[in-house]
Amino acid sequence: MAQRHPDMALAEAGERAALPAGDVLAAYLREQATTFLRALTRNAQGENDTDAPDAGHQLRRSARRIGSALHTYGSLTDPAWADPLRAELGWLSSTLAREHEYGGRLARLLTALHRLSADEETLEDEAAALVPAQAQQAAPGGGPLAVGAARAGALLERQLSLARTRAHSAALQAMGSSRFHAVADAVAVLASEVPLAAAAGAPAGEVLPTLTSHAHTVLAETVGTLPLPRAGHSYNGDALRSALAAELSAERQDAPWHRVRILLRLSRYAREVFPYADGEPESRPAALAHVLEQHREAAEAAAAVTSAARTPRIAPATAYALGVLHADQRQEVEQARFAFVHLWQRTAVS
Amino acid sequence: MAQRHPDMALAEAGERAALPAGDVLAAYLREQATTFLRALTRNAQGENDTDAPDAGHQLRRSARRIGSALHTYGSLTDPAWADPLRAELGWLSSTLAREHEYGGRLARLLTALHRLSADEETLEDEAAALVPAQAQQAAPGGGPLAVGAARAGALLERQLSLARTRAHSAALQAMGSSRFHAVADAVAVLASEVPLAAAAGAPAGEVLPTLTSHAHTVLAETVGTLPLPRAGHSYNGDALRSALAAELSAERQDAPWHRVRILLRLSRYAREVFPYADGEPESRPAALAHVLEQHREAAEAAAAVTSAARTPRIAPATAYALGVLHADQRQEVEQARFAFVHLWQRTAVS
Repeated sequence: MAQRHPDMALAEAGERAALPAGDVLAAYLREQATTFLRALTRNAQGENDTDAPDAGHQLRRSARRIGSALHTYGSLTDPAWADPLRAELGWLSSTLAREHEYGGRLARLLTALHRLSADEETLEDEAAALVPAQAQQAAPGGGPLAVGAARAGALLERQLSLARTRAHSAALQAMGSSRFHAVADAVAVLASEVPLAAAAGAPAGEVLPTLTSHAHTVLAETVGTLPLPRAGHSYNGDALRSALAAELSAERQDAPWHRVRILLRLSRYAREVFPYADGEPESRPAALAHVLEQHREAAEAAAAVTSAARTPRIAPATAYALGVLHADQRQEVEQARFAFVHLWQRTAVS
Repeated sequence: MAQRHPDMALAEAGERAALPAGDVLAAYLREQATTFLRALTRNAQGENDTDAPDAGHQLRRSARRIGSALHTYGSLTDPAWADPLRAELGWLSSTLAREHEYGGRLARLLTALHRLSADEETLEDEAAALVPAQAQQAAPGGGPLAVGAARAGALLERQLSLARTRAHSAALQAMGSSRFHAVADAVAVLASEVPLAAAAGAPAGEVLPTLTSHAHTVLAETVGTLPLPRAGHSYNGDALRSALAAELSAERQDAPWHRVRILLRLSRYAREVFPYADGEPESRPAALAHVLEQHREAAEAAAAVTSAARTPRIAPATAYALGVLHADQRQEVEQARFAFVHLWQRTAVS
């Protein structure tokens, strides 16, 4: 359903409004469960295949959507069955995502280091030749600063590659575990028969929009608790504030934004189950999700840099480069919040 | 003249338009020369007086204005006399400014370190109690990050205090030198008789607006060579770009902005000699000058941090804190450029 054109989906929703809500929800869950099981088969067959990463992506994607639908439309399903499955799907998708995340974090940090350490001329030449920055090595060339940058890059590469390898092993181990097989079995049940609650008998047009709009209301209320006016002011310096204070300072500051990211995802996926005609353009939630994803990636990259800086016996030049890189990523955190506020306010007005 | 209300100054300019241009220029130079000589006397009397810093400020202020008027209205004075005096006034004001600059740089960096290393709660409490951040010590409290911040602060304090002390000695030495006495003598001549060129006989209303507007045109043309569209885009990341490349990278990038700062000063001071009625609100050039001053201070503070990071045998935690602080100041460089572009474009439109 996610792949269909939104207008078509909306027209179909009109027809489906008279169906029992449980039927509509079950159809969505069946579709996602089928995708999940197909990806599982492809993944099992093609362990060393080039398709395998795509299969992993598809697995995570469906797992998140099933879990999300079970959350938003939980009142329509048997809670004794839905709640534990939702928790297990959460475990699965985060376990499978980790390897990908470490890879992305390393690429992000090496790209940033390149931008920070290459000469202006080199950067301009690359922009002209459209050579992706990642493809270039952080050119040593210059003095002690560039040496520090190169060493910082090597340190991050070593640490994050190791973390990625471990995450890969952990994912393989998880996929072979009985815990995983239990999840796969539960999803297989979902593909044939969804255990529904009594409330699922009511017409879809009456029940589903209320639940979808509830997800959106929770999102909007939580966004309302964010420091929007400050974050919408460029160069407010908030994300870097207290960067050298106790380690938990950034986490405490970022947490409400991460929570909004989760709620936005619930709201977006809920619209896939039953489009909710409130004039929200289809592209807006995706754009909001993108900036909050940037927010999360930059925040986690900054934390990885702080952690690398704690490595014993690093050279001062390496530590200095890590400090610059940390601040650079916290700056991207601030930038993502700024972009979110302006996108959100445009959404709220229209 | 600078202290008068602009409307009054403009009305007086109407009356003065018929006077010879040389008379109007000479009156301005005489006023500045008198202020300079008075400040010199106060400075000599009150070496250990609380008034002394004000006297130093007044000396620099008049020296800059005399030099600037001799530059913009150079065609009205005897070049054989004006050009060397202008160069000597430049030497004098930069020699006298240095002590003040090091003090300001240290205060700026300690304030920034405090913002970066204090807990969010502490910062909020301070904001509520309106306690200036500078008054607070960079609280150690936290883990290795806070220790690094405290050590970085101590290192900067040591280096910049030493530089300030040296600048103070250099200023005292300069004030006792025969070179200084020659400048003071030349300014004393200015207070009684300005050596004018033949062109100074033409009516002020014909000659001065042309020269004032020429200063503004040179400024506008130079601003036109800046990367305005990029700099006017928030979070463009330009000022931090290449922060870890060769040391000269930042200087090369900042130079055109510093040049605009000088040209803006020439244009501002020219308006004091003879107000130029082009509808430019009086407050705008001052606001532009302020953001370019912030630009310069942040750029020089960032360079001082890089220089401190080159101190042998510093701890990695200290170097890391210096890296974060460097990036923070480069961020303020970017912010100042952003503010300049938007102020400038508002000026250009109105």
